[in-house]
Amino acid sequence: MSKRKYAIGVDFGTESGRAVLVDVADGQEVAAAVHSYANGVIDKKLPDTDIRLDPDFALQDHNDYLEVFKRAIPAVLKESGVAPEDVIGLGIDFTACTMLPTKADGTPLCFLSKWRENPHAWVKLWKHHAAQPEANKLNQIAGKLGYKFLDRYGGKISSEWFFPKAWQILDEAPEVYQAADRLIEGADWVIWQLTGQEKRNACTAGYKAIWSKREGFPPNDFFKALDPRMEHIVDEKMSRTLYPLGAKAGGLTEEAAGWTGLKPDTAVAIANVDAHVSVPAATVTEPGRMVIIMGTSNCHMVMGTGENIVPGMCGYVDEGIVPGLFGYEAGQSCVGDHFAWFLENCVPGAYEQEAEKRGLSVHELLEEKAAQLNPGESGLVALDWWNGNRSVLVDVDLTGMLLGATLATKPEEIYRALIEATAYGTHTIIETFEANGVPVNEIVATGGLPNRNKLLVQIYADVTGRPIRIAGSSQGGALGSAMHGAVAAGQEAGGYNSIVEASKQMARLRDEAYEPIPENKKIYDRLYAEYITLHNYFGRGANDVMKRLKRLKAEVRAGL
Amino acid sequence: MSKRKYAIGVDFGTESGRAVLVDVADGQEVAAAVHSYANGVIDKKLPDTDIRLDPDFALQDHNDYLEVFKRAIPAVLKESGVAPEDVIGLGIDFTACTMLPTKADGTPLCFLSKWRENPHAWVKLWKHHAAQPEANKLNQIAGKLGYKFLDRYGGKISSEWFFPKAWQILDEAPEVYQAADRLIEGADWVIWQLTGQEKRNACTAGYKAIWSKREGFPPNDFFKALDPRMEHIVDEKMSRTLYPLGAKAGGLTEEAAGWTGLKPDTAVAIANVDAHVSVPAATVTEPGRMVIIMGTSNCHMVMGTGENIVPGMCGYVDEGIVPGLFGYEAGQSCVGDHFAWFLENCVPGAYEQEAEKRGLSVHELLEEKAAQLNPGESGLVALDWWNGNRSVLVDVDLTGMLLGATLATKPEEIYRALIEATAYGTHTIIETFEANGVPVNEIVATGGLPNRNKLLVQIYADVTGRPIRIAGSSQGGALGSAMHGAVAAGQEAGGYNSIVEASKQMARLRDEAYEPIPENKKIYDRLYAEYITLHNYFGRGANDVMKRLKRLKAEVRAGL
Repeated sequence: MSKRKYAIGVDFGTESGRAVLVDVADGQEVAAAVHSYANGVIDKKLPDTDIRLDPDFALQDHNDYLEVFKRAIPAVLKESGVAPEDVIGLGIDFTACTMLPTKADGTPLCFLSKWRENPHAWVKLWKHHAAQPEANKLNQIAGKLGYKFLDRYGGKISSEWFFPKAWQILDEAPEVYQAADRLIEGADWVIWQLTGQEKRNACTAGYKAIWSKREGFPPNDFFKALDPRMEHIVDEKMSRTLYPLGAKAGGLTEEAAGWTGLKPDTAVAIANVDAHVSVPAATVTEPGRMVIIMGTSNCHMVMGTGENIVPGMCGYVDEGIVPGLFGYEAGQSCVGDHFAWFLENCVPGAYEQEAEKRGLSVHELLEEKAAQLNPGESGLVALDWWNGNRSVLVDVDLTGMLLGATLATKPEEIYRALIEATAYGTHTIIETFEANGVPVNEIVATGGLPNRNKLLVQIYADVTGRPIRIAGSSQGGALGSAMHGAVAAGQEAGGYNSIVEASKQMARLRDEAYEPIPENKKIYDRLYAEYITLHNYFGRGANDVMKRLKRLKAEVRAGL
Repeated sequence: MSKRKYAIGVDFGTESGRAVLVDVADGQEVAAAVHSYANGVIDKKLPDTDIRLDPDFALQDHNDYLEVFKRAIPAVLKESGVAPEDVIGLGIDFTACTMLPTKADGTPLCFLSKWRENPHAWVKLWKHHAAQPEANKLNQIAGKLGYKFLDRYGGKISSEWFFPKAWQILDEAPEVYQAADRLIEGADWVIWQLTGQEKRNACTAGYKAIWSKREGFPPNDFFKALDPRMEHIVDEKMSRTLYPLGAKAGGLTEEAAGWTGLKPDTAVAIANVDAHVSVPAATVTEPGRMVIIMGTSNCHMVMGTGENIVPGMCGYVDEGIVPGLFGYEAGQSCVGDHFAWFLENCVPGAYEQEAEKRGLSVHELLEEKAAQLNPGESGLVALDWWNGNRSVLVDVDLTGMLLGATLATKPEEIYRALIEATAYGTHTIIETFEANGVPVNEIVATGGLPNRNKLLVQIYADVTGRPIRIAGSSQGGALGSAMHGAVAAGQEAGGYNSIVEASKQMARLRDEAYEPIPENKKIYDRLYAEYITLHNYFGRGANDVMKRLKRLKAEVRAGL
């Protein structure tokens, strides 16, 4: 083929959607555009009303997703000058679980005036945490009745996932639950809008809706045990047909072609989850190399050849990342967020002034100062639980701890201790994977943080004792989506027949590599031993002080 | 007597000396003056030389003490307009142990050009910490040989005390040790300068030089075991005659009268220690009421009728505070210093700007914000060991810890948690006293902090469950010294025959009282239970992580 072909990936984030147009031959990013959601995260009150939301609510407006197609795709076509007929495929990735109730034809309930003022008719964003009571009940009932499917998720599922959210609708707004013909992931809903076909992806279902390729969904009896009205939720409002990653969902409808400026019938891939699609975009399609998506939180993805129960992980899914392998996922709930908290709350004015005078950001100044310290020099060790522990303890009620402070302790020492703590957290995850038969020999870092913070990456290499490479694209989600678009188009159309091939051609690593420094590793081994002792003491029941303090705090705030 | 009589107290602090002139009838402060030491704390290099000091050294210049007499006393006479003949007595108090080597006539060695360039010829200030190796050896040898006198000091003595400092001179500058006819507390040295008589006080000897009224100093064999050259240190360079508090040392010499503007032969009291003299100045001359001197550190003073071994206290001395009672002392090494550290290192620029805009100090702003929180609301608990633990663990190698932080934690919550931690530390001390037969029914707070920080005092009341009164004078040291001056003068001269009588007439409390708030106490009981569990876990050997981290830090800094 002489003529260059292109694919478009659209990454739906928490605050905005990003489209990239890439060259199918080498993955080169030709153009990119971001569209910020007009209604962003809806967590105070419903748009255009005075209807206030409970504090744990986090909703979105489905129309914001469509606006991304209508604005960002035309923008990348225009910027690149690429002709619509040379765009062979389109893929998307989405936050998950982000779900909504719709009518049978896909019309979101919140689009209908009858339901528009009911918060439960809107999209529940991944970080909607108001379904915690339902998650607790679900975990308890599954345990009591002896169902084993929770073992795939480290023993319990999160309030962020599909069935707690669905159940919350039923609990709090049974009329909305009743009116919803479909309950669907945002990821699958946007594909429906593009192709006119409701084709759900197996990845989201596997990681967020307790589905597995071998066992399917939990049995109806289980849902009946939760609430008799939910007995047939899967057959009534979901689907038992789930499509693998890389499959083609269909072609663009005339209407969607009109929104985007692309040709009707352009190949559209089955939807992806943001984290999982980043893995082949980081060149990883085989076991042994872990991809860590480093941003506000860390997401750890690794593949294995067998089905291993790894305690305390977020989940594993057969073919959840690439075909033919089990995809394992773990996470840390507080990484970039942690440093942002520190910057906002703990950095003295004198540092802000110094940074300004020297033309640095406060982050850069702190990194510079922290980089001058040697491992162990601060005498500090922290537990990285400012936002709970996702893996391997799976406990949102754990909190942060800093130990070793003296009157000589400086802000940059605390900052470095917080970075180190997140590295220890990652090391705990790696050790748990390896102890349970999932090897991790090397790390590929992707996401926003690794590009901004070299010190952080070196500390991760030193603490884990593994070499770290950096993904070539910092837009792993959008690139991975475009790669899936090229696979949906297929080789004949100028794309690829598998994500493994697409990854080989379209993904790359940066040249720089971070090797563990042996002297540092030796000291970090000693510090990590201290971390693990504290991790187990506070995290595994020897002293539940963190939970008691959280309970007391809740009591005091409730005025009890 | 119709004519009013006055007494002067001089309080020698770390950076300056303060004189107050008070009315003997009612303790009213008529005039006050402060003189800052020209050479302050000498910890970088010897004055007027390039001779650098080791980092743990903290020296002073004896001449700075004399300058306080020459400047501050004339200043209060001038300011008050009081005639010198109406000043019936003079007392002083001093930091301790602050000691120096002198010739037989009292001339400090560092005054002589032969020794002036030797750091060991200078005054060693209380916070000179370079004698830690000697303190360690002393504690070890005393333990090995089965001497029981360390039981009076919680089981070990500090590097800040007399014999480690004396021994360090011998170890590092045997020629200075050899040339020193006398090794003497600064407190006793200034009294010698005023009266021409070397009369040492029992209080400092009891608290800092392992002396007791019943047993005297440790036996010569003990000193021989430390170093044969020290066998006769007490008889050769000190004195076995020690004078009780409130006794008269003598009258002002002609020369000292010239310095001060007072009449020759004005009564001069035996020297006092700063903390101990504050007790009768805070109206306390009986058991059951604890005086807490709150400043950069906390000093807890309480009296008992019997001789009780209280583990982990700084010491107890028969008649160490007032005649006829045992004086017990405990301490926390980091209180005001703690908050100052926090302000310097952890308060964001936005708070500094808000404080400036509202015309508040940052301390005031933080106090205001922290006061709006309820106990338990932050979910935080801290261990107040940023500068080690003085009582009841007596361990300088312990370090600070903060637990319970989340991404929503605000600076004022941490600030309040640090205040609460110091209150828990005080509560530990009180509980240990009571468990060992020394009751504490009520607290009188004195020193700089209680006047500046009402929130702190209320938290102490709530945590300890004891009412707290505030001493009427914020200059407890100087007032107490003046009271001892009035006792040295005696009733016939218009003064008093005992410190108990002087305290009744001259000391007072403020009207305001802080009562424990029952709801708060209930919550603090739960938080204190968490504190104690952590206190014992980290402080009593279950997990020596703090010591290991400190050792690692020292190794790294030494480049090992």
